[in-house]
Amino acid sequence: MKKGFKYEIIKECRQSGARIGRLTTPHSVIETPVFMPVGTMATVKGLSPEEVKETGAQIILSNTYHLYLRPGTEVISKAGGLHKFMNWDRSILTDSGGFQVFSLSQMRKVTEDGVEFASFIDGSRHFISPEKSMDIQKVLGSDIIMAFDECTASGTSYKKSKEASDRTYRWLQRCYEHTKDWEGQTLFPIVQGNMFEDLRLESLERTIPFAEVGIAIGGLSVGEEKPIMYRMLDVMQPHYPKDKPRYLMGVGSVDCLVEGVCRGIDMFDCVLATRIARNGTAMTFRGDLTIRNAVFKEDFRPVEEGCDCYCCRNYSRAYVRHLINTDEILGGRLLAIHNIRCLMRLMEKIKEAIREDRLLDFRDEFMSKYTPKIQG
Amino acid sequence: MKKGFKYEIIKECRQSGARIGRLTTPHSVIETPVFMPVGTMATVKGLSPEEVKETGAQIILSNTYHLYLRPGTEVISKAGGLHKFMNWDRSILTDSGGFQVFSLSQMRKVTEDGVEFASFIDGSRHFISPEKSMDIQKVLGSDIIMAFDECTASGTSYKKSKEASDRTYRWLQRCYEHTKDWEGQTLFPIVQGNMFEDLRLESLERTIPFAEVGIAIGGLSVGEEKPIMYRMLDVMQPHYPKDKPRYLMGVGSVDCLVEGVCRGIDMFDCVLATRIARNGTAMTFRGDLTIRNAVFKEDFRPVEEGCDCYCCRNYSRAYVRHLINTDEILGGRLLAIHNIRCLMRLMEKIKEAIREDRLLDFRDEFMSKYTPKIQG
Repeated sequence: MKKGFKYEIIKECRQSGARIGRLTTPHSVIETPVFMPVGTMATVKGLSPEEVKETGAQIILSNTYHLYLRPGTEVISKAGGLHKFMNWDRSILTDSGGFQVFSLSQMRKVTEDGVEFASFIDGSRHFISPEKSMDIQKVLGSDIIMAFDECTASGTSYKKSKEASDRTYRWLQRCYEHTKDWEGQTLFPIVQGNMFEDLRLESLERTIPFAEVGIAIGGLSVGEEKPIMYRMLDVMQPHYPKDKPRYLMGVGSVDCLVEGVCRGIDMFDCVLATRIARNGTAMTFRGDLTIRNAVFKEDFRPVEEGCDCYCCRNYSRAYVRHLINTDEILGGRLLAIHNIRCLMRLMEKIKEAIREDRLLDFRDEFMSKYTPKIQG
Repeated sequence: MKKGFKYEIIKECRQSGARIGRLTTPHSVIETPVFMPVGTMATVKGLSPEEVKETGAQIILSNTYHLYLRPGTEVISKAGGLHKFMNWDRSILTDSGGFQVFSLSQMRKVTEDGVEFASFIDGSRHFISPEKSMDIQKVLGSDIIMAFDECTASGTSYKKSKEASDRTYRWLQRCYEHTKDWEGQTLFPIVQGNMFEDLRLESLERTIPFAEVGIAIGGLSVGEEKPIMYRMLDVMQPHYPKDKPRYLMGVGSVDCLVEGVCRGIDMFDCVLATRIARNGTAMTFRGDLTIRNAVFKEDFRPVEEGCDCYCCRNYSRAYVRHLINTDEILGGRLLAIHNIRCLMRLMEKIKEAIREDRLLDFRDEFMSKYTPKIQG
């Protein structure tokens, strides 16, 4: 394993096979299963690093594609890397830009060499190859760098999905060769294969040899129904390497975290928690609350009873609703703090259940009380 | 003086007559001269109460007019008052709504009884009388409540200015009668008179008997040139009550704070610090910096060298510029923290000069280095 990195399994749930682990990077020790808040633009939207830390986060995700376009690699290089630039001293995982090139860019042209695309900001033309993505992530100085992959949307044909998965594999070899001697950074390879079981298994099998420290599952939560995603996870679960954390990319709703851990996943990230916060939606163990609703006008309870976050300790639903309804920035900020902390608390509950070998019971009980959207 | 309130003068500058004082309210002890951050909607835009406190603020201002419209008096009453609603345990001063009725409302109709106006939110019709403004402020539970006055814009005729000033006086009598037995809240009367010296002096003279704890100067910084405002302050300065703090309403640029204190002012408030922060402008002792500008792209110095605020201790101009340019909320938040702290630090420098009987020298030196807008 790369110097400075370590993954130890502390406990395996006898009921589900889910694990509690400890991932060490040069910047922090991360207990898994873990939810990683997203700081796309070198900031977890609306929050200070101290607030992110107070939620319990030991690692955040940031985006190569966005930072490459703004402020640009040179600024971050001169700042001494992303940690210093944004004042975050715990771990950082950076996405490779693969997903964003496919989801955000127009007029992209994929060749064996890499991807040419137009910036979503000003339409300027750019080219990113696997090697270039690695080089940008080297400048960013993230602890965990992601392989440059080709992600396909739900509904992509078998043929195109196989082509993308095959190219992802060839690109992975280039990413690995380019980074294998780098110090202080480890490469997570990404499994693709769309919603096709044989492609998933093929991709997983050939990706495993490149998993130094951990392995990622990409190309899920890309528009498919949740049962399909769960099915894909079920198919892969028996074949993961035991001793490495498995990272399910872009997944972060309350129910998907529970279901994901039950299927052997150790790491998650998603913008959902912060994005819906800005729209005035609070995550809770019972489901989402639309705080904007009139029913909360004179509701002086905390956003989620029993929550220990800064928002719930100090403010009422009525106050947060007032802030959201008057477009006051503090409203989205308080809900972002709450939502991230909600997912962290959920992970604590999940770990408790793993420790007690009853994660599947926990899942059943939890899901019986969970409704995607609830009223007060 | 009202129970729970006290104003002591600690030091008077022999060079300028400016004073250092200590204003005690039921919620905190406020050293004057003081800048009061504005929390119009029951939040200092973008900041948590802890962040506001960290700037050194002992008192904030909030707006009766805005809170009356949203979330409404009933919600705040049920919350147990504004302090509890917004989680702020230091002092609060509330504006009476007089200024907002005149500056924000359309189709207002002023009668001797009060003002009928259309809400700036939905056009609904409302009526506020002096007594009603007092009653709302009672529910808000602010430490300092402001008289309901009629404010006139710069350029208003002598006749109309006199009418407004006379009505302000009659309304003041009603505000005073209505509130004189209230506990825990003190009424600050407001001097009007537009830009006419004799009206200012007349208004000041008849307002003084109603100044229990402090007195406010309204109707300045309403569109006139700064020298005209300074002239009005010069005219009034010899006539203020010695033993009461004088509050210049709505003034809060760096240069105006210095010039105001030199003219005997003890209290200031203004939205400028937080408003320009959101547009990416930083206040400094040397003048405003447009952080958005390209010149700051690779400038890794703090926003203002020598500043001890959270922003300057932890972040670079390059990072703040990146946040502002990518519309990241943290950017405006960091600049709001800096700007408020900048005004607080300025007040500390001013008090130092008062203590050393050299405020006029300080002013001359300070202003010789000050340019409204500077480049890097």
